[in-house]
Amino acid sequence: MADCIFCKIIAGELPSSKIYEDDLVLSFMDIAPLSPGHTLVIPKNHYETFPEVPPAEAAAVTSAMLKIAPAVVAAQNADGFNLLLANGACAGQVIFHVHFHIVPRSNGDGLGFAWRHGSYADGEMDKVQQAILTALKE
Amino acid sequence: MADCIFCKIIAGELPSSKIYEDDLVLSFMDIAPLSPGHTLVIPKNHYETFPEVPPAEAAAVTSAMLKIAPAVVAAQNADGFNLLLANGACAGQVIFHVHFHIVPRSNGDGLGFAWRHGSYADGEMDKVQQAILTALKE
Repeated sequence: MADCIFCKIIAGELPSSKIYEDDLVLSFMDIAPLSPGHTLVIPKNHYETFPEVPPAEAAAVTSAMLKIAPAVVAAQNADGFNLLLANGACAGQVIFHVHFHIVPRSNGDGLGFAWRHGSYADGEMDKVQQAILTALKE
Repeated sequence: MADCIFCKIIAGELPSSKIYEDDLVLSFMDIAPLSPGHTLVIPKNHYETFPEVPPAEAAAVTSAMLKIAPAVVAAQNADGFNLLLANGACAGQVIFHVHFHIVPRSNGDGLGFAWRHGSYADGEMDKVQQAILTALKE
């Protein structure tokens, strides 16, 4: 896609620090890392959002992450990692070419998801479940 | 695995609000949601961490998320979603049976990853890249 920064990286029109590449997938380092080693994994074909990605291409992205994530952890001597995907501006998506973040994590690094979990009122979870099940059938 | 809460859910020994199930994958609602509709997607086989999951099972989890995430968004009239996986206690993993979170997001909900991105010093990114590439070959 003409105006997509990630498509330009894929096409070699913009530089990147590549980590992995195959027919369907490109992985390169995030230049504004949440922690050193923060790496992105993307389908080469342009899709704005995750649900648009064909299953075979999403599987290729996932397979790449299975290999790349432990390499990122090993390289940084980290303690673990998060995989994160933001779908939609409200969720933090800035580049509208679907991408997973691999964020290496270390004990006490202060990163992580805002984890303010709530609870459901009586009967509320059942209603939400039914709404999701209905939407799944549509 | 005997002491795993998710394996007990899979076996029907503990209740859950199921959203989706196939031979390899189970999806059910998180009972302590970050936002209403917060849903988990797991491989049925027990793996503590993401890199242990065989590619075919990880692909099945990913394929399920392609269908479930937009249904969660539609059901909640949300604006988007995050996919999140925590690998290791340092990354926020609490249940050691690998699982993806689908967190529906709405504008201004105050959720999201702690997004304090940094930058690399001159030459640092190249060193980190080489370390990751070396680890990938091992």
